[in-house]
Amino acid sequence: MPDVLFPLDSSKKFEDQEKIGHNRWHPEIPPVATVKPGDEFRVDCREWFDGAIVNDDSAEDILNAPLLTVHKLSGPFRVEGAKPGDLLIVDILDVGPIPQEKGPLAGQGWGYTGIFAKQNGGGFLTDQFPDAYKAIWDFSGQTATSRHVPGVSFTGLIHPGLMGTAPSAELLATWNAREGKLIATDPNRVPPLALPPEPQFAVLGSLPDSEFDRVAGEAARTAPPRENGGNQDIKNLSKGTRIFYPVFVDGANLSMGDLHFSQGDGEITFCGAIEMGGFMDVRVDVIKDGMDTYGVSENAIFMPGNVEPNYSEWIAFSGTSVTLDGEQRYLDSHLSYQRACLHAIDYLTKFGYGPEQAYLLLGSAPIEGRLSGVVDIPNSCSTVYLPTAIFDFDVRPSASGPHQIDPGMGAPRAVAS
Amino acid sequence: MPDVLFPLDSSKKFEDQEKIGHNRWHPEIPPVATVKPGDEFRVDCREWFDGAIVNDDSAEDILNAPLLTVHKLSGPFRVEGAKPGDLLIVDILDVGPIPQEKGPLAGQGWGYTGIFAKQNGGGFLTDQFPDAYKAIWDFSGQTATSRHVPGVSFTGLIHPGLMGTAPSAELLATWNAREGKLIATDPNRVPPLALPPEPQFAVLGSLPDSEFDRVAGEAARTAPPRENGGNQDIKNLSKGTRIFYPVFVDGANLSMGDLHFSQGDGEITFCGAIEMGGFMDVRVDVIKDGMDTYGVSENAIFMPGNVEPNYSEWIAFSGTSVTLDGEQRYLDSHLSYQRACLHAIDYLTKFGYGPEQAYLLLGSAPIEGRLSGVVDIPNSCSTVYLPTAIFDFDVRPSASGPHQIDPGMGAPRAVAS
Amino acid sequence: MPDVLFPLDSSKKFEDQEKIGHNRWHPEIPPVATVKPGDEFRVDCREWFDGAIVNDDSAEDILNAPLLTVHKLSGPFRVEGAKPGDLLIVDILDVGPIPQEKGPLAGQGWGYTGIFAKQNGGGFLTDQFPDAYKAIWDFSGQTATSRHVPGVSFTGLIHPGLMGTAPSAELLATWNAREGKLIATDPNRVPPLALPPEPQFAVLGSLPDSEFDRVAGEAARTAPPRENGGNQDIKNLSKGTRIFYPVFVDGANLSMGDLHFSQGDGEITFCGAIEMGGFMDVRVDVIKDGMDTYGVSENAIFMPGNVEPNYSEWIAFSGTSVTLDGEQRYLDSHLSYQRACLHAIDYLTKFGYGPEQAYLLLGSAPIEGRLSGVVDIPNSCSTVYLPTAIFDFDVRPSASGPHQIDPGMGAPRAVAS
Amino acid sequence: MPDVLFPLDSSKKFEDQEKIGHNRWHPEIPPVATVKPGDEFRVDCREWFDGAIVNDDSAEDILNAPLLTVHKLSGPFRVEGAKPGDLLIVDILDVGPIPQEKGPLAGQGWGYTGIFAKQNGGGFLTDQFPDAYKAIWDFSGQTATSRHVPGVSFTGLIHPGLMGTAPSAELLATWNAREGKLIATDPNRVPPLALPPEPQFAVLGSLPDSEFDRVAGEAARTAPPRENGGNQDIKNLSKGTRIFYPVFVDGANLSMGDLHFSQGDGEITFCGAIEMGGFMDVRVDVIKDGMDTYGVSENAIFMPGNVEPNYSEWIAFSGTSVTLDGEQRYLDSHLSYQRACLHAIDYLTKFGYGPEQAYLLLGSAPIEGRLSGVVDIPNSCSTVYLPTAIFDFDVRPSASGPHQIDPGMGAPRAVAS
Repeated sequence: MPDVLFPLDSSKKFEDQEKIGHNRWHPEIPPVATVKPGDEFRVDCREWFDGAIVNDDSAEDILNAPLLTVHKLSGPFRVEGAKPGDLLIVDILDVGPIPQEKGPLAGQGWGYTGIFAKQNGGGFLTDQFPDAYKAIWDFSGQTATSRHVPGVSFTGLIHPGLMGTAPSAELLATWNAREGKLIATDPNRVPPLALPPEPQFAVLGSLPDSEFDRVAGEAARTAPPRENGGNQDIKNLSKGTRIFYPVFVDGANLSMGDLHFSQGDGEITFCGAIEMGGFMDVRVDVIKDGMDTYGVSENAIFMPGNVEPNYSEWIAFSGTSVTLDGEQRYLDSHLSYQRACLHAIDYLTKFGYGPEQAYLLLGSAPIEGRLSGVVDIPNSCSTVYLPTAIFDFDVRPSASGPHQIDPGMGAPRAVAS
Repeated sequence: MPDVLFPLDSSKKFEDQEKIGHNRWHPEIPPVATVKPGDEFRVDCREWFDGAIVNDDSAEDILNAPLLTVHKLSGPFRVEGAKPGDLLIVDILDVGPIPQEKGPLAGQGWGYTGIFAKQNGGGFLTDQFPDAYKAIWDFSGQTATSRHVPGVSFTGLIHPGLMGTAPSAELLATWNAREGKLIATDPNRVPPLALPPEPQFAVLGSLPDSEFDRVAGEAARTAPPRENGGNQDIKNLSKGTRIFYPVFVDGANLSMGDLHFSQGDGEITFCGAIEMGGFMDVRVDVIKDGMDTYGVSENAIFMPGNVEPNYSEWIAFSGTSVTLDGEQRYLDSHLSYQRACLHAIDYLTKFGYGPEQAYLLLGSAPIEGRLSGVVDIPNSCSTVYLPTAIFDFDVRPSASGPHQIDPGMGAPRAVAS
Repeated sequence: MPDVLFPLDSSKKFEDQEKIGHNRWHPEIPPVATVKPGDEFRVDCREWFDGAIVNDDSAEDILNAPLLTVHKLSGPFRVEGAKPGDLLIVDILDVGPIPQEKGPLAGQGWGYTGIFAKQNGGGFLTDQFPDAYKAIWDFSGQTATSRHVPGVSFTGLIHPGLMGTAPSAELLATWNAREGKLIATDPNRVPPLALPPEPQFAVLGSLPDSEFDRVAGEAARTAPPRENGGNQDIKNLSKGTRIFYPVFVDGANLSMGDLHFSQGDGEITFCGAIEMGGFMDVRVDVIKDGMDTYGVSENAIFMPGNVEPNYSEWIAFSGTSVTLDGEQRYLDSHLSYQRACLHAIDYLTKFGYGPEQAYLLLGSAPIEGRLSGVVDIPNSCSTVYLPTAIFDFDVRPSASGPHQIDPGMGAPRAVAS
Repeated sequence: MPDVLFPLDSSKKFEDQEKIGHNRWHPEIPPVATVKPGDEFRVDCREWFDGAIVNDDSAEDILNAPLLTVHKLSGPFRVEGAKPGDLLIVDILDVGPIPQEKGPLAGQGWGYTGIFAKQNGGGFLTDQFPDAYKAIWDFSGQTATSRHVPGVSFTGLIHPGLMGTAPSAELLATWNAREGKLIATDPNRVPPLALPPEPQFAVLGSLPDSEFDRVAGEAARTAPPRENGGNQDIKNLSKGTRIFYPVFVDGANLSMGDLHFSQGDGEITFCGAIEMGGFMDVRVDVIKDGMDTYGVSENAIFMPGNVEPNYSEWIAFSGTSVTLDGEQRYLDSHLSYQRACLHAIDYLTKFGYGPEQAYLLLGSAPIEGRLSGVVDIPNSCSTVYLPTAIFDFDVRPSASGPHQIDPGMGAPRAVAS
């Protein structure tokens, strides 16, 4: 096991640790450690809500999830010699849940998936699912099962939802400008179009108090993926993956967090993966001037690891870019994926699942979501693939009709008052 | 080999065959044959342009591709006993190019990929690639190589781009209404927003002349995928796949065509797969009342075959929903996939490819396109995965910089006068 | 489709064709055609018994299978410029059953698996299965099912059981000497230890009559694999495979045949694959002096294709090198694989299969047989893996006990009088 | 993480731990703990030589490896309610190296592969490699590399080499009788034919001193796999695997150890995997009367996990059952696998490897060894598959000849004086 450069004590809050991370992006957040190219090190990661979501059968915590406080990130790590224009290589040597006794913190033998209420962020299908729901998943080795979504068990595709380098001041200004413009087009929208800088609940590592207000007022929220990587939620960044990040500041200032025990393509329930805390073992290296050499001006490129769970039988659903109300949209792949997912949900309900159970499953199981056709005007075609082996029963269509499961207690629900 | 219910003579035009297919969707197009549930049969398929695109080093044919004439479809096949509300099972037993001597028709040992000019339909990246380009691919067994895109060879993922059941009159009316509304929002757009019914060049099988004008005036164009399946361009509908189509008319009236030797997710160059004629062996069956029983009101569901080419190493690119001009869009997965593909193109050009060669490659090789993150406001994150083994050289980033290929003659280009 | 250099008319016997192949190995068998390095060509192949085994429900034909007549091989093909010491590259571009109407010849929509009687060659488990059995398999596309082995269907892993280059006179003499010595240790054994040259039923292509007796008296039988490749029965030589054969005579003189629609590792029932006639499309090339350059003095090396059926769930059985009578053998991997296979058979009989049905299935389905431990004195450990998805029912062990199938008519049996 | 029922302190010898395991098989070795069906628990495992092999550049330790002391096993674990005739289900939830700081014990960031000298046990190719050799492998996450075998890196297929239930007194007597008979046929053979009970260095857990001599005189050595599972060295027993063991004594008395970071099929160098200490998380359950219900009278059956490293390109070598001296053996699959492995070694030496480096690599990398043809008298055909992606260079044959690696310091060698 490599040295732990960012340790976390499971009994303490994120802000009370030996080393303090951050939950905003800003070039001035001080590094927690300096490493050399070639170094391997371990990083503990806290689940994104720092313990606000608990292992019970109520969704009240999801309904009131404190979005201003996320994501609790480990880092930044300064890499000696890394300069703007370089590519930072990050090898994910290992990644997993908290390697200790079972406990109350997500990652201690369990994790959760949530559907946010429309008033609190919403999700991919928020118009169909405006309320809050939660599912708790138990881990046995690399396998996940849930009392809230019975009849399935699957092999986790463990990965960090969020990792990236620090933005330069210029890049940060660009983010704030373009996202501000978008917000301005509909500033009161629920859920909002984007999340502006927000000093409240900002955690900025060891930044001196004297700088806090200025930096917190500029620092970008961590929800979206951006040029620096960030919250990409790419389920395939699993063990063995090599990632190449653009470097925008001296030292690169790499941070990571938001670990997922598993996730479906899209993380469609927003809090959609199986969220957990845990650890990552990484090795870093630098390709000098790699951004220009390889034409990588922004966004990560990567080579996925080769130990992804191997599933070979799938049932797949397709969707096109027509709204549920029958309106024809022009090549809207976001919409066609929504329609494909809704088709999958309709299908699963015929087996006895509640629609919200099916939705939670699509967010957390290793489903594949593909942009199958993007040019056949006016309809794009997206497809979603569910591995049949994750179901305890035969989920394939046949003349004998769908097997009926016992949906159990169902997924806890909470409604805004 | 099963009986050939729809034979095609490679020396004759589509309209001069023994049995005549169609290139529009309409419930009144007469079946070419009637089959029983459980029957297996062979269907010959013509490439979508019926020979207009030739095996040479000019892109003039792509520039002038006759879009009004497509897609040349085989069928419809009437399935005894199939009724509206049933699910039609189609097993793709086999699918391949024309099993005969090499010749001048696409599918006779070769196929083509085209980038349409912006004035003639455009494509996924038409703003970056407004002109017409072509690549010819040669087949050796299941392997494709191209003199226009050197340095790569890959195993074909052969599939039909288009298959589906006939719409009911009501469904057809719905299509025409909603697409007409979309067109009306910008009727002179280039390329157009959608394609309205067009009697010119309509082929309607053995429909009596007396009905031709009326039906041709109503019949839907075949470009988009719709509730009946249609031009879904799902690359995973390969040999061994079982598909379930909704049935909207008595007999289901199944048709198919637009075979692809290979395709990347999205078929991003529009004429983007490796287009060819060939054959399909299918078996049909019916699940009575399957639409309601399984919640399939529209769009195909399917189980992909298990002989897809197995590639295990990938280089992947990510993109977010910010335009090249820096404008922030809200959760636009179509845009984020465009950006991911542009990143892949930028990368490949560093190895010596022309951008259009890279674009043609992404359209035709078995690349994977995934909706990785669709909820992290305001940015969606899409990813595109290229199998590294298709390149004759090491395509991975390293400190030694990109290997330089010889781009050869390049991809033929044609510019509208 | 490449040119057919060795055509076969399904209505005629092997010896009555336009071009006549061979069923013995000898350097003097004249080539049927000459090709150049880089050439692609098609070769028709006859099933190994040339029609002696028929599609019915009797095993009399297997009981009396004419072993002296096998294998009916297509070739030899002379490759210009190939010299002893070179490596001959053979790319299997395509391979499949007879691409024509269904008919009475194996390969015309069906194939067969046989268990030879102990008096007529025997098989891997001949002490447990001394009688003859047969199973007929029907092909639907690439899927096989059998009325004699119900409850299973699997994707064929189509390949040539036999391919190789001609031996030199010296190499042939070596074969005859060493195999003769082995036979001499127990000349009357049933089944025999090896098969000596046998002029009766020898087919030697266009060899002049004047040479026939001499050559037929020297020519090696085709049953075993040897330095030239030959009857290796490697199930992984499927479409897309590249093989490198040592060259022992000028022109290499490549021959092939004994096509299998599917086979399990070991081809344990001897006539154990699904036997059929069909075609192969190959491309040949030469690495000059490749034998020395790459240290390949004998036996083929190869790179398997990437379209093997992807199965991801397996039930596996292990065996050690102790006989059924309890005798401890020293590191005998042949025995440990027998024990593993017998364990698999014991297991399947608990689901209602007859032991011979299970044995036939292991010979023909794409099972994996591995040498797991070969050094742990005195027991070697072999393992056999069955894909669970080939069974129509849940074949995994559970507390609820084995599902009971209907074994149907069972596998036809024939007993020597 | 489940409770640790068998903890090991890396700073202490195996016999000085809190709980003491065993290195012989005997029904009277007392359980270290009792668990219930359904329980999950962690077991620490010591590498098989308990620290005798060190991380240096000498093979003296391998030359003098203390074979009488192996294997250091964790357990036995008594499972409540398990009775003879039941099947014991063991789920391997997780398995890995020692999850602590790097250190001097194999499993603390490194492991080793050894070739035993012929005088000290030998190996699969001991006639060709009579001396002792060693390779040290370093772990970075799940990847292994070696200063003694440069130019390769591969993903570990981590598994227990040894796991099994306790034999009954009757079964133990059977083992001793049959192995004794074998030894008696050549009692002075070097290496020996089998290993008889040996009180010296026996470790028998908490067995009372009064019973030690008797039990140690009866207890079976752990080298071979037998009816109870044992040292099967099946590389596919990786994370996610479910195994079913026959139960021979009340409580089943499950033990395990001999962890491997990786291994090739056959573990051909005897000390052939990458040996290490580490941990296993398992869950146990019982199928009452499962041995009869499922026809499992002996030897484990299992379902491999689905996170094995996915390699898709292979170079494969075949061998037949003819000795290097040209003697024809009858269907000897052990020999044909030896010949296949020797062909692979010959091939790799052409790239610059020493033969012993190639041999060490075949023992430790995730190579596949298959029984391809076992019936084609008189030659069996075995095949060995090397994943091409584990080599830093292009290992495929081509007209340009083999790339030449720098073999570095080579593999340390030690010769018996």
